[in-house]
Amino acid sequence: MINQQAVFEYLQSLQSKIVEAIELVDGKNFLQDSWQRPEGGGGTSCMLENGNVFERAGIGFSHVIGNKLPPAASVAHPEAAGRPWEAMGVSLVFHPRNPYIPTVHMNVRFFVAKATKSTEEISSPHMDETNTGTATNKDEDIWWFGGGMDLTPYYGFEEDCVHFHRTNKEALSPFGNDYYTQFKQACDEYFYLKHRKEPRGIGGVFFDDFHALGFEQSFAMLKAVGDAFLNAYLPIAQRRKDTPYGEIERDFQAYRRGRYVEFNLVFDRGTLFGLQSNGRTESILLSMPPIVKWRYDWKPNAGSPEAKLYTDFLIDKDWV
Amino acid sequence: MINQQAVFEYLQSLQSKIVEAIELVDGKNFLQDSWQRPEGGGGTSCMLENGNVFERAGIGFSHVIGNKLPPAASVAHPEAAGRPWEAMGVSLVFHPRNPYIPTVHMNVRFFVAKATKSTEEISSPHMDETNTGTATNKDEDIWWFGGGMDLTPYYGFEEDCVHFHRTNKEALSPFGNDYYTQFKQACDEYFYLKHRKEPRGIGGVFFDDFHALGFEQSFAMLKAVGDAFLNAYLPIAQRRKDTPYGEIERDFQAYRRGRYVEFNLVFDRGTLFGLQSNGRTESILLSMPPIVKWRYDWKPNAGSPEAKLYTDFLIDKDWV
Repeated sequence: MINQQAVFEYLQSLQSKIVEAIELVDGKNFLQDSWQRPEGGGGTSCMLENGNVFERAGIGFSHVIGNKLPPAASVAHPEAAGRPWEAMGVSLVFHPRNPYIPTVHMNVRFFVAKATKSTEEISSPHMDETNTGTATNKDEDIWWFGGGMDLTPYYGFEEDCVHFHRTNKEALSPFGNDYYTQFKQACDEYFYLKHRKEPRGIGGVFFDDFHALGFEQSFAMLKAVGDAFLNAYLPIAQRRKDTPYGEIERDFQAYRRGRYVEFNLVFDRGTLFGLQSNGRTESILLSMPPIVKWRYDWKPNAGSPEAKLYTDFLIDKDWV
Repeated sequence: MINQQAVFEYLQSLQSKIVEAIELVDGKNFLQDSWQRPEGGGGTSCMLENGNVFERAGIGFSHVIGNKLPPAASVAHPEAAGRPWEAMGVSLVFHPRNPYIPTVHMNVRFFVAKATKSTEEISSPHMDETNTGTATNKDEDIWWFGGGMDLTPYYGFEEDCVHFHRTNKEALSPFGNDYYTQFKQACDEYFYLKHRKEPRGIGGVFFDDFHALGFEQSFAMLKAVGDAFLNAYLPIAQRRKDTPYGEIERDFQAYRRGRYVEFNLVFDRGTLFGLQSNGRTESILLSMPPIVKWRYDWKPNAGSPEAKLYTDFLIDKDWV
């Protein structure tokens, strides 16, 4: 049996916990903006703009309900098309001001396409003669968890990358030996800018369509990832937030943020699905950086600190 | 008979003519960067960055050759799939520094999917038994022109919008009475941000898959549009380039440029096709603005000059 209410409550409390922790670090409070979705559901977008540590930090909770799942929404589960469905999640992107603090993204989500057969229908099998038992039972919910987190430095530090990956590996290890390796690889594959032949950052973990451990343990794994976020990121932000920087570093940060925009608007499935399905634009685009620059065919000087990002960090590497 | 060489020469000369005119206005020269495409063809990207009038102005010429047209590349002409093809065009986006000068986009292009039947094959119909005559003749080239231009003001002036549209209307009028009206409507429909429920700017003209007048007259129409560009835009740039502005206007310009990024990366077919088909990234993204800002759920104060853009310019209007 799945317990949607428990997931709902966990996600709301996770958002509150992260908001509180970030406010303590930053010294400025989030704007908390709740909204309703006309078609069903709603959410709360929390934004901290122009803070002391964070130039633009957004964390959204949303709970979306629909009567009929569009076929395009579930490639992995075509049998879920047409069913009533619910999706809920917490998603965050934090863009710090100091270029020595990396940008971070985290997302945890739960999806369920509900059973369409009532008890009465199950006892009258003649009412659904096409259900011969070879396909998925219509009296079973189809559900899965997804999520992960990934780090995007401007000026990289090996110890930060190791800490971020190690925290994720430790969070996942109670659930199976392979999950970290598997989810790290999925992360590297997903957060890749094909048109630049560049990874977005130094990766992390990413999983989707996860139900392998049954509801209770799969949910526990989701919670382990969500709960690991502050441990994975805050020590890095704390460690780098007072590092002095100047115009060169800010300029490089703004230039690199252009890659973040390119990834999210051209490739990110969540962003594109949201924008194309009449989602709440300002909540979807809370991932956009505050200030971004583009310039033609720019490359860092060989051996410069900016070049080091490409040669030492945006590479295929086992960080742990 | 089509004359690809004449189109090629026209497009190259159009690029040179616009580069020279803009250099005179700006006082700074373009960087001219020629490149080859490994799969066939190449181009020249001209960029003016950090100029006196233009903060980032890009104009690209490209000529791309392929052996087999991918089916997805030609929705309007499925019969062209698999044929050898050529595409050539000039595309420009100019982002001025002064927020009182609008951003402008212009594009003129020619596409041809070549006849695949040689003279010998035509005289030996048994060599192609599937060609029963009901489909397009394989001994005929499939070709079309496309293009247009559109204007994106930050602070609008009615006289500028009227001038831009009137110049386009006059350029098209020798070719048929309806073309301006038809192409203006196509422009309004194409340059629309669905997720914002906002037009990108005040429109202009847009056409695609155009061959209705035969090669000579269709080409003449393309030339009329290309040649109208400097007349349509330069008087506006000249008129506004010395208007004083401050931080508020620069800030609003950077915020509104975010819409340009959102349109080009989420909706623009040329940009997405280029990025997905291993095009030259820096040439495709010459349309990106130099400095862009995003902020959460921002709205201008009612009655402000910034609000006027939304109420008086980003509307469905007959400007001529």
